[in-house]
Amino acid sequence: MVRSIRVVQVGLGAMGSGIAEVMARRDGLEVVGAVDPSPDYCGKDLSEVLQLEHDVGQKVQADMEEVLSQADADICIICTFSFLHEVRSQIIAALQHGCDVITIAEEMAYPRAAIQGDGEEIHRLALAEKRTVLGTGINPGFVLDTLLIALTAACTDIERIKARRVNDLSPFGPTVMRTQGVGATPEEFADGLQDGSIVGHVGFPQSMYLVASALGWELDEVKEERKPIIAEQRRTGSNIVVEPGMVAGCNHTARGLVDGEEVLVLEHPQQVEPGAAGVDTGDYVDIEGTPGISMAIKPEIPGGIGTIATAVNMIAPVLSASPGLKTMIDLPLPRAVLGDVRETVKQLQVAHDCTS
Amino acid sequence: MVRSIRVVQVGLGAMGSGIAEVMARRDGLEVVGAVDPSPDYCGKDLSEVLQLEHDVGQKVQADMEEVLSQADADICIICTFSFLHEVRSQIIAALQHGCDVITIAEEMAYPRAAIQGDGEEIHRLALAEKRTVLGTGINPGFVLDTLLIALTAACTDIERIKARRVNDLSPFGPTVMRTQGVGATPEEFADGLQDGSIVGHVGFPQSMYLVASALGWELDEVKEERKPIIAEQRRTGSNIVVEPGMVAGCNHTARGLVDGEEVLVLEHPQQVEPGAAGVDTGDYVDIEGTPGISMAIKPEIPGGIGTIATAVNMIAPVLSASPGLKTMIDLPLPRAVLGDVRETVKQLQVAHDCTS
Repeated sequence: MVRSIRVVQVGLGAMGSGIAEVMARRDGLEVVGAVDPSPDYCGKDLSEVLQLEHDVGQKVQADMEEVLSQADADICIICTFSFLHEVRSQIIAALQHGCDVITIAEEMAYPRAAIQGDGEEIHRLALAEKRTVLGTGINPGFVLDTLLIALTAACTDIERIKARRVNDLSPFGPTVMRTQGVGATPEEFADGLQDGSIVGHVGFPQSMYLVASALGWELDEVKEERKPIIAEQRRTGSNIVVEPGMVAGCNHTARGLVDGEEVLVLEHPQQVEPGAAGVDTGDYVDIEGTPGISMAIKPEIPGGIGTIATAVNMIAPVLSASPGLKTMIDLPLPRAVLGDVRETVKQLQVAHDCTS
Repeated sequence: MVRSIRVVQVGLGAMGSGIAEVMARRDGLEVVGAVDPSPDYCGKDLSEVLQLEHDVGQKVQADMEEVLSQADADICIICTFSFLHEVRSQIIAALQHGCDVITIAEEMAYPRAAIQGDGEEIHRLALAEKRTVLGTGINPGFVLDTLLIALTAACTDIERIKARRVNDLSPFGPTVMRTQGVGATPEEFADGLQDGSIVGHVGFPQSMYLVASALGWELDEVKEERKPIIAEQRRTGSNIVVEPGMVAGCNHTARGLVDGEEVLVLEHPQQVEPGAAGVDTGDYVDIEGTPGISMAIKPEIPGGIGTIATAVNMIAPVLSASPGLKTMIDLPLPRAVLGDVRETVKQLQVAHDCTS
């Protein structure tokens, strides 16, 4: 058997440490470095930070360059920021040290739709270094794009697709509440949208253009809209109470138009205690076409563990892919990799072998 | 723009003619030949057989070799039989004429699970001819394997997967009724299973081993079971009435075991008028794992149009794949190809480029 796949984890927040914990117990993977400058983690044993039963023999370090210089890593998982310009230098450092890269930065799910830059610089560097870069996660990255796209494979014709991810913000902390406007008055919500302190969901343009690119639709325009969800009953989260008349969350929608016709509508209402208003959480895809397909996942795929899973499960497809900046539609059918990850890499390499 | 993708359709039954009709109206595809020895079609204008509004300038011919010799085709869609040994010679002929191949023969969805032969001969010939072969369809090929596998990508751990496809046989003709045992007495059903005249669903071993191969499970054993669904109320199909006490259909299940534990249970009850017994048709996937995922598509994706769609939509992935006998887990995320098929081929070729 070939040596273990050597992974460096960059960022040990809720997502990064979850990913590192799953990687530490996967056959064929070895966590050979962990980077996080936060004093909560830096200098500590990684096994302690991740509450692992076995010792992986790594201390969390602050400096990514230093870790990469020593780690001889195959792949680097970057879980630090949401936007391309924020993760750019970390991706470049990983590529220059010979690593493939997976990041959960939302904008990297489809960088051509990013606000700043289009990922072309990263694509060219990845080609030059013969390495692969992928952005993924639960959303963008899976529910409102990858899974929706897979469902379309059973259709000959499609007039319109509507998809909706309805989740419950109740367990989340103050940062999420603030950026979704939970607990604000309707006036404060409007002001927050204006000054950018209330943002709703990050990743709609990525999902929209990923779907359009897969299906062969040329979108004229993507319209985003953020509306307050006003509580009619009192709603209670883990650290917040929303009184009637106040904002319980943000209903964020995106509409994609082809030749003036609305062909793709994605909706992501995020709110505290949706059950109080009789709203079931779930992931819903409705394809109006031939045939029509109506899919429901109830409750919704949880965002945290779903992001952790997609990131870890895409390691094998990324390691076996050709060089460049990829998206989920460029890579083989995603899957849970439950056995030895090296075996899946080998299987996918054989399947894609261009030399035979 | 490069020339159109030249396709030969082999077999013009319900599936084959549906596929040819969709291909005839897809941008970038040209139907350059059609083969069916049946006197219903042979010698007729293909446009007439397919009820097309425009003339594609082809007559249906009986001899596949003759069509292939003249067609200069890129890909051949084979919709003739269910089993590998039955389509073997047609696939070989297509490969020898320089064509890629898509077939809806159920056993070709995962030929290593086939009853006779394992597809190795076809794989070696495809490699030698530098061509690609794929088996696909709605089931096997999509609902109980490809789609189920895609859902697992959001899981870190999986204990067990149960999936169920519940459909309605009411619209089908006498052949389907006979092979599912509809209208038989319970004794006749038991005899039919014994003598092989009642078969249930064709394709469970393919779906089981495809899922196991994707997830890294080594199945010890696959157990199949076919049980009669006895009508408690009178049930009515388009050409059959089933009285109480008679067989309304076949509940076919397959169970896959790893180390003696049941990890994968697929169930496909096929019956006339399930609504009479209060049964909703639908496609259901339940993953017991982290996270648990419970997916429902109601009603089920229709089998006929779903098979037509998956076959046509896989043309671009097959044309851009490396040589050999492939399965759905070897190829990129499936999708509806609604624009010019040549554009999707180009997009996928760039994504997989091994030379860069």
